[in-house]
Amino acid sequence: MDEQECWARVGASRRAVLGTLHPRRGIDSVPVVFALDGGRIVIPIDSVKPKGSHRLQRLVNIEHDPRCVLLIDHYDEDWSRLWWVRIHAQAIESAPSERHLAALADRYPQYRVPGSVVGTVVLEPAEIRGWTAV
Amino acid sequence: MDEQECWARVGASRRAVLGTLHPRRGIDSVPVVFALDGGRIVIPIDSVKPKGSHRLQRLVNIEHDPRCVLLIDHYDEDWSRLWWVRIHAQAIESAPSERHLAALADRYPQYRVPGSVVGTVVLEPAEIRGWTAV
Repeated sequence: MDEQECWARVGASRRAVLGTLHPRRGIDSVPVVFALDGGRIVIPIDSVKPKGSHRLQRLVNIEHDPRCVLLIDHYDEDWSRLWWVRIHAQAIESAPSERHLAALADRYPQYRVPGSVVGTVVLEPAEIRGWTAV
Repeated sequence: MDEQECWARVGASRRAVLGTLHPRRGIDSVPVVFALDGGRIVIPIDSVKPKGSHRLQRLVNIEHDPRCVLLIDHYDEDWSRLWWVRIHAQAIESAPSERHLAALADRYPQYRVPGSVVGTVVLEPAEIRGWTAV
């Protein structure tokens, strides 16, 4: 799978799994939604989905070590249709820009409510790789 | 979500995302299939899905650091139906036992072909946690 094909599949996907480094546990993984902004990936910190604590662990983690990985995958009982795309990136917490808010609202109607996105994590990809069964 | 409910959702899921620690990149994530064996999770190393290299990176990683995380999640456009379960565990590579081969073949018809599973990664959970939107 070439890089263009990888990005096309990422763009067409609705959710991904974000992995960040936890100082003690090693890794945290969490499902995320996202939008694309050129070559960057914008992950919302929202007020829509209920959270367990005020400061999200993923934010604590990336402050400590910005390396992260984003996995987009497709499962099918027909294993000839399996594929995944993996992006290694540097993550940075950021106030939401107008452009990023618009990109998120464009993809997810839930984010058309003002104030629903309170922050973002922006991923700067270092490496993208895809795999497909056939 | 209590621990019993977490395990019920894991058992009913068909695929998960395994995160392991890469010495340089920080984290690797890869989709996996799995079976349960009591409180353990059995991930096959198979000869069914084509692989990029002989020695899988996830095996190199767990040899170096056995800490890993398994994420099972459900995405739905109706966000009141979102949920995930996350298991922090120690991973160990293991020759496939008869019991594990049977558990895998029971869940995935692809593994009923003799020789389709050439090894396993067995996860010993340290912590299981679930989240649900409602």
